[in-house]
Amino acid sequence: MPQEVERQYRAILRNYLENQNELNLYEGQTFSKQLIQKNISPEEMIGIHRSALEEISPDIPTTIHHSFDLLIEVMVRYGLALHEHQNLIQKQE
Amino acid sequence: MPQEVERQYRAILRNYLENQNELNLYEGQTFSKQLIQKNISPEEMIGIHRSALEEISPDIPTTIHHSFDLLIEVMVRYGLALHEHQNLIQKQE
Repeated sequence: MPQEVERQYRAILRNYLENQNELNLYEGQTFSKQLIQKNISPEEMIGIHRSALEEISPDIPTTIHHSFDLLIEVMVRYGLALHEHQNLIQKQE
Repeated sequence: MPQEVERQYRAILRNYLENQNELNLYEGQTFSKQLIQKNISPEEMIGIHRSALEEISPDIPTTIHHSFDLLIEVMVRYGLALHEHQNLIQKQE
């Protein structure tokens, strides 16, 4: 997973937490286009989010940290479905 | 979004947080199969996760609460890609 993506997301999250406005949310939307192009799976994205959050707020409760493990597990299937989609598209091209 | 799904996920998350073992993680995996069958989008799932977490730990910091807004926004595009996939499959059937 490219470190550049992690760095970018951390900056977007930091901006959003400092100033929760539509413009910052929109940054997240455009960023996600890039994620899909780079084949970053939804479960990887949850991992990137957790790391960014923990760098920004190092004192987050361990409950929160662990809860992300379950969310990552749940997202794996969404990632598989998406991967299947990308394969289908390639076959059609 | 069915309340039943929220209730189920809350129970799975609570079990997992009490006892972080492979069996509880596996429950999350099988649960996610159901989510996709019910057309629950990944961004809806993030919302379900946040609600469940806040019911289990009502004192989670507001930073964490807000951070999920950005994660939901990022997941929207994954949801769109998946929706496109489901449409493709329907066309092929």
